[in-house]
Amino acid sequence: MSDLISRLHWRYAAKRMNGNIVPAAKLGTILEAINLAPTSVGLQPFNILVIEDRETREKMHQAANSQPQILEASHVLVFAAWETVTADNIDHYINLIASTRGIPVESLALFQNKIKESLLSRSQEELFNWSARQAYIALGYGLIAAATEQVDATPMEGFDAALLDEVLNLKEKGLKSVVMVALGYRDEEKDPLASAKKVRRPHEELFITV
Amino acid sequence: MSDLISRLHWRYAAKRMNGNIVPAAKLGTILEAINLAPTSVGLQPFNILVIEDRETREKMHQAANSQPQILEASHVLVFAAWETVTADNIDHYINLIASTRGIPVESLALFQNKIKESLLSRSQEELFNWSARQAYIALGYGLIAAATEQVDATPMEGFDAALLDEVLNLKEKGLKSVVMVALGYRDEEKDPLASAKKVRRPHEELFITV
Repeated sequence: MSDLISRLHWRYAAKRMNGNIVPAAKLGTILEAINLAPTSVGLQPFNILVIEDRETREKMHQAANSQPQILEASHVLVFAAWETVTADNIDHYINLIASTRGIPVESLALFQNKIKESLLSRSQEELFNWSARQAYIALGYGLIAAATEQVDATPMEGFDAALLDEVLNLKEKGLKSVVMVALGYRDEEKDPLASAKKVRRPHEELFITV
Repeated sequence: MSDLISRLHWRYAAKRMNGNIVPAAKLGTILEAINLAPTSVGLQPFNILVIEDRETREKMHQAANSQPQILEASHVLVFAAWETVTADNIDHYINLIASTRGIPVESLALFQNKIKESLLSRSQEELFNWSARQAYIALGYGLIAAATEQVDATPMEGFDAALLDEVLNLKEKGLKSVVMVALGYRDEEKDPLASAKKVRRPHEELFITV
């Protein structure tokens, strides 16, 4: 079994955590992996809130069916997708490519127009759904990076998104929360799922070979 | 730098591949990682088509703006989300949990009802969007597993989904294609992006610390 697969077997969605703090270097690796996640056309149309503040977490706890991980985690990450995508967002991204690669902005005009044509013709709802999907790639990256750092990571969709957006002032930032991740350390005594066998569909049911 | 981060720096979305075949063991690891990806409530509401067949790929190539990776890859994975979620799907999943863990189905009644209440009240469109997001977590897992196996993996959204669904008979399977991944080996001579610097948003722009 590859090292990666054995780390993925180790990981599960801890329902209870013990309050221990994730060291800064490990958190940094997890965030770096999230930033390295690929996205469609490379736009990264989302932001990630990294929440340690206790008072904010008390409010988030209320918006998330009082799930204990919110308070027992070391940090909570909130993946928030852009509500929409604008021409300015795309121009800003094109400038980032040009400055990163040391090439003239003009040399990217074809790519720039192609992205604009593809994205700016979509409705706001389509763009938000598209952005949310990209955020889920980054979510997958964050979960694996946590597992390789031996940090527990529990993805959570069970929250009142409108209420959470209010708590975190996301609307004024043009963002909408789509999924959270509690980062911390499992409490094996309090969490009966810590020792439960992982449930996955048999390969022949999930994969279709053509 | 952690091993994982250095693998993630190595990976990029190869635009040209050299036709070399990904060995079965490596492909198996990539598929196993995809199967180990977590999903909301654990349902895994998608299927993955693993496509090697040349004739099928010729048709997919046409549905995907003639992007060369479709033909130059070793395998193409098509992530197809469930069009909807039914009570039967949920019952089937509950049976899988019970048989995997050797516990009575009845002991899962509370969980079963909770999932049904949460999911079956949603519209078909909401369920499809939800399923698609889950598939993107699995996409992230597949991309990282490929990178750790030194296999190139190019995610692709640029295709005519309705046409691709027709080519692959997805409608009759209750599926809709959401994203593809070409698996294979980069052709460094033909792909100018093979040596291009990776472009990512600065941490202070992507992350918001609270």
